[in-house]
Amino acid sequence: MPKVSLSFKDKFYKSLTNNDSTLVVGLDIDDTKIPSYLRHDKYPLLSFAKYIIDATYDKVIAYKPNSAFFEAYGLKGMDQLSQIIHYIPKEIPVILDVKRGDIGNTAQRYAKAAYDDLKVDAVTLNAYMGSDAIIPFCEYKDKYQFVLVLTSNPSANQIQTYRLENGEYVFEHMAKEVAKLNDKYLNCGVVVGATRPEHVGVVTKATPDSFFLIPGIGAQGGSIKEVLGACTTSKNQCLFNVSRDILYASNDKDFANLASKKAIEYRQEINKYRHS
Amino acid sequence: MPKVSLSFKDKFYKSLTNNDSTLVVGLDIDDTKIPSYLRHDKYPLLSFAKYIIDATYDKVIAYKPNSAFFEAYGLKGMDQLSQIIHYIPKEIPVILDVKRGDIGNTAQRYAKAAYDDLKVDAVTLNAYMGSDAIIPFCEYKDKYQFVLVLTSNPSANQIQTYRLENGEYVFEHMAKEVAKLNDKYLNCGVVVGATRPEHVGVVTKATPDSFFLIPGIGAQGGSIKEVLGACTTSKNQCLFNVSRDILYASNDKDFANLASKKAIEYRQEINKYRHS
Repeated sequence: MPKVSLSFKDKFYKSLTNNDSTLVVGLDIDDTKIPSYLRHDKYPLLSFAKYIIDATYDKVIAYKPNSAFFEAYGLKGMDQLSQIIHYIPKEIPVILDVKRGDIGNTAQRYAKAAYDDLKVDAVTLNAYMGSDAIIPFCEYKDKYQFVLVLTSNPSANQIQTYRLENGEYVFEHMAKEVAKLNDKYLNCGVVVGATRPEHVGVVTKATPDSFFLIPGIGAQGGSIKEVLGACTTSKNQCLFNVSRDILYASNDKDFANLASKKAIEYRQEINKYRHS
Repeated sequence: MPKVSLSFKDKFYKSLTNNDSTLVVGLDIDDTKIPSYLRHDKYPLLSFAKYIIDATYDKVIAYKPNSAFFEAYGLKGMDQLSQIIHYIPKEIPVILDVKRGDIGNTAQRYAKAAYDDLKVDAVTLNAYMGSDAIIPFCEYKDKYQFVLVLTSNPSANQIQTYRLENGEYVFEHMAKEVAKLNDKYLNCGVVVGATRPEHVGVVTKATPDSFFLIPGIGAQGGSIKEVLGACTTSKNQCLFNVSRDILYASNDKDFANLASKKAIEYRQEINKYRHS
């Protein structure tokens, strides 16, 4: 039998149906925050991730490993990242948070690293260099790219929320560039932070056919209600990421159990407004 | 005796004096372009890099390995990158071209990966997310960050050369944000492409105390004469990167010899305008 390979969108709709969830669990695994008894394992990041995945795989739409947390440990870290990706059930999409942004044959290499070597389903990207930084990823037609548009951090104000001569915000212009790519390749979404709900509608209007990866709820204080209230598209297109609040719900032996409970709580809170 | 560790700036001025050069050799090592007899080595990227470094180390101000070209080969690629960095003579700065751009504890992890694990002297960064993406790197006070301001690729026009409401270009605004960081941390420079010499003066005026990493000469066609003509600071602050034209001067046994000749030619061309 030929090997059937699921696209990002196949997996997305499978998880949406199976798990009734648009919650993404961010795997920003900080070895100083995991339970101390796991820190002395040969592969502490992997051991911790396995517990988290076992506890949450039936409550999420996707996982989002954060590449930096593995790169910081060199080859040993990257080996653990690769094993974690392999451990995630095949029907659940993996979004690799790498925020790469380079051009031409360099972008092709980053795409190869993510899609051919690590075999993830989607990545986060930075388009300050324009579409040259995105197209080499788009050419993997079964994958999906989330381009930074409006981020949830304070200093996003230093550039993204400035207005251009024509009155558009910089982030709005960026969203429109993503929409052009999505019209052509059908696999481009955006990152838009939950900490700026007043701008969410501007983004969803500019990119109505995209998925939205939304950080900033949980520890950063963004409101699910306000974001979904402002969203002008199907609310199923809004993927909410939570990392710390779930991963580090406890630093004791009950951490996986409490991570599961926290994931259920976030799913409920999202679904309350998603289904209304 | 205590181990003396040289800062980026120490190494920069040492190379400038020893080699009379502001040429950076970019190590974008493409295993499909290296001589075929090297492709079957156990570590082809490393073998090739050693020949290039041996042939050019006395003609350059710095080396700039491009992380993507190693990441694309997974653990084996990253192992070769680490060995190449180790092979570069200690008095020559290594600028890791990673173009990272993330925030908070993620940015700290990327800084750790570059500065603690790989032990390079400088990196390239993307500040679309604002200074949150740069400051964790600046805190390594002996290192140096080159922030993308105006890049040499065609689609840079989709965002960087737009004008803001106040009449400034987006890239000009970005340069001013870098200047603020450099006023505080003294270790922030910019990337400005040689393909847009008409804008070089805008950037050098905005960041007069920075180093400028300048891609786009060689294969991309930018003019050294025009860039140095437009530069409003000391011309020694302008670092010109060349990759392909030097690395792949030949794909036969004479490749290292021809790489050396090409490096000499580029140094001469730069010095003609740098010293005038």
